[in-house]
Amino acid sequence: MSVQAILQSHPRPLIADAATLARCIDACAVCAAMCTICADASLAEEDIRDLERCLRLCLDCSDACIDAGRILSRQTDPDPPTQLTALEACWTACRACAQECERHARHHEHCRLCAEECRRCERACDELLGELRD
Amino acid sequence: MSVQAILQSHPRPLIADAATLARCIDACAVCAAMCTICADASLAEEDIRDLERCLRLCLDCSDACIDAGRILSRQTDPDPPTQLTALEACWTACRACAQECERHARHHEHCRLCAEECRRCERACDELLGELRD
Amino acid sequence: MSVQAILQSHPRPLIADAATLARCIDACAVCAAMCTICADASLAEEDIRDLERCLRLCLDCSDACIDAGRILSRQTDPDPPTQLTALEACWTACRACAQECERHARHHEHCRLCAEECRRCERACDELLGELRD
Amino acid sequence: MSVQAILQSHPRPLIADAATLARCIDACAVCAAMCTICADASLAEEDIRDLERCLRLCLDCSDACIDAGRILSRQTDPDPPTQLTALEACWTACRACAQECERHARHHEHCRLCAEECRRCERACDELLGELRD
Repeated sequence: MSVQAILQSHPRPLIADAATLARCIDACAVCAAMCTICADASLAEEDIRDLERCLRLCLDCSDACIDAGRILSRQTDPDPPTQLTALEACWTACRACAQECERHARHHEHCRLCAEECRRCERACDELLGELRD
Repeated sequence: MSVQAILQSHPRPLIADAATLARCIDACAVCAAMCTICADASLAEEDIRDLERCLRLCLDCSDACIDAGRILSRQTDPDPPTQLTALEACWTACRACAQECERHARHHEHCRLCAEECRRCERACDELLGELRD
Repeated sequence: MSVQAILQSHPRPLIADAATLARCIDACAVCAAMCTICADASLAEEDIRDLERCLRLCLDCSDACIDAGRILSRQTDPDPPTQLTALEACWTACRACAQECERHARHHEHCRLCAEECRRCERACDELLGELRD
Repeated sequence: MSVQAILQSHPRPLIADAATLARCIDACAVCAAMCTICADASLAEEDIRDLERCLRLCLDCSDACIDAGRILSRQTDPDPPTQLTALEACWTACRACAQECERHARHHEHCRLCAEECRRCERACDELLGELRD
């Protein structure tokens, strides 16, 4: 809610529909936090050996979400290719992380929750990509 | 909600009460996003000269929030001084940014909303600091 | 030097030639720092209005460099599309930022130095992209 | 070298001696990269169980270095408490990470190199803290 409100107070035209944009920025922020926690929880699990790829992709996904969330937050004098590629990188990282976390969802609740959030962020990126590519 | 749920699925004891911890991690994520947007909106304002300090402190605050949000998200084998100082740095950045944004709150809605969020994050950090220092 | 040495002590096969990879990770780290400083220096210039786009793209570039530098630093169980898209996003941000900073290079030494570094990072990304796409 | 040069082209007075400041910003950038690699290398080691705390503190240290490196890079209208606490948080994270990595330095070259870099960054932060506190 608050992200959409502050976007609507921006003096420049927004790069996309305010609700779509806010949904993506919010999803990036939440997904980054969930992935940081899932990576750390995986580190503490007894089957860490099986969670190696999960831990690694969660770290990547958190980094990609922070990056895209920031770049998409900026409305002043944007460079469209910079925005598009950041968003594509985030979408790609979310999808890879979701796929891996889903494999562990039955054994680890943190993987189930993280996968769910990655899918939500993947969809939010996809929706915004659709608008930006038009 | 989702951050608290994933924290509760962590295999290790949490460093603080789950609700307090989740409130702080959530506030850091939202505050980082709001500050990134407020900095960018300030850049586009006609009175950018008056908003110089606002823009700068928003960038600092966003960085400090990302850092603290990540460090506090980790529950495995924590180093208490590393956690405490990250949280103190975040609290300090939020307070400074809030003070500056409040000065512009009547002229710029983005500053008003950003200040409000910085104060919320400052309180969430303060509450968690209280628990961690005990 | 130190980044290449630590990469060579990694227990897994590296995703690319150690020297190429280290050059890219090092370039991302230096470019992120230079862009942060150029954005801040631009904020303090009298002709800030002309440097608006420069400031903005420097912030984007710094974020993209941090993201790519981290994702490329990880050698354990990589997801190739996640690595490639992060690198493409970084290359794109460096190129856009270099182009803008070059426009101001004659008037502002920080823009000249920043553009030079962005070009160096763009080349380092390009070289690594060449290897990863093979 | 390049960080010191760009700092010297900044239109505002620097918050500290250019060489001390550049040394700290450079050290933060290199240390963040080394810690990201050491965390990832630890994940791939057979004795990951013994490296759990190392991996975790490397992630913290990388985050704290990125944060401090950015906040100290900014010279325009600084808030001294925000700068000091970010630097203290970085110094604290570097020291904790160095202590842990030193414990594994004989068995893992990446821990030895990472510890060395963390100590270098700790000293660079300490030197800058000395100047800023005066």
